[in-house]
Amino acid sequence: MRKLSVLEMGRMTVDEYKESLKTPLVVVLDHVRSLYNVGSVFRTADAFRLSGVCLCGITARPPHPEIHKTALGAEDSVDWKYFEHTEDCVTWLRQQGYTVLAIEQCEGSTMLNNYQLSIVNCQLPKIAIILGNEVKGVQQQVVDMCDGCIEIPQYGTKHSMNVSVTAGIVIWEFFKQLH
Amino acid sequence: MRKLSVLEMGRMTVDEYKESLKTPLVVVLDHVRSLYNVGSVFRTADAFRLSGVCLCGITARPPHPEIHKTALGAEDSVDWKYFEHTEDCVTWLRQQGYTVLAIEQCEGSTMLNNYQLSIVNCQLPKIAIILGNEVKGVQQQVVDMCDGCIEIPQYGTKHSMNVSVTAGIVIWEFFKQLH
Repeated sequence: MRKLSVLEMGRMTVDEYKESLKTPLVVVLDHVRSLYNVGSVFRTADAFRLSGVCLCGITARPPHPEIHKTALGAEDSVDWKYFEHTEDCVTWLRQQGYTVLAIEQCEGSTMLNNYQLSIVNCQLPKIAIILGNEVKGVQQQVVDMCDGCIEIPQYGTKHSMNVSVTAGIVIWEFFKQLH
Repeated sequence: MRKLSVLEMGRMTVDEYKESLKTPLVVVLDHVRSLYNVGSVFRTADAFRLSGVCLCGITARPPHPEIHKTALGAEDSVDWKYFEHTEDCVTWLRQQGYTVLAIEQCEGSTMLNNYQLSIVNCQLPKIAIILGNEVKGVQQQVVDMCDGCIEIPQYGTKHSMNVSVTAGIVIWEFFKQLH
């Protein structure tokens, strides 16, 4: 099978992107340290045309050369917002009508493969997912504010996966349900 | 909801992992340059208990301090094999009974959300997925040897996603079908 050239992929311009209808899904990064993870999340958010990315606490913000290295310009297409305190971000999202879900391994969390978005009166829900720091995860007080906790089932020796990979899997799964 | 401690997650030891039944899925990295991507793929492979990772061409091999930094020890649990030429890896996988799929944007490729593994006589298929170099993708001559081409649909401005994120999404989707 012949590989497509970049031109044949027919991607949109940043201006077209800004005007386009977005997937009602927002990613929140709660004190994510790695600039690589931030850039990579921007790139995935661009691919699935998310409504935005919220950067909280120590999470770095564009413009930043290290974010650009992995985002490759997706930081210019995807809307983003900064909050010093993740709690303020959750409050703001709630006011905007978002259901806020922590991606964490909690007592009684719902496995990602079992989670079904509830679509009422043909109205798509607005969903925000929170990913935490590489070592500490989502802060307990932030988890406590959430509407639920989603966990990716894992069967290996390590306690977690990389933050940007985790974000990618959850975004993909929700994107399929939202389209 | 209370976050689980690492102990409560009840992960297996490397010895237990080695003895455990594996998911019949192998990841092939065709000239992947970033050590971060290699380490991250090992960590995802561990989480979904894959049968192995094949490292080809310029792809770095463990032990390597930079791979360890992101794999965090998953390079010790997951089996891996090195091939100088990716073509030899594809030939070897075919001999082992694997269906080999390139993850690429090709003329006539199948979208990931439309791909169904064929399960014959309750026998799970053995699947290998090939991910390519960060800039060039999977080599055309390697794509030509594959049984098919799988593409993740993308709706943004950039032509692709990060290699380890792409691997994570495809592994998750196939893992669900294989269990």
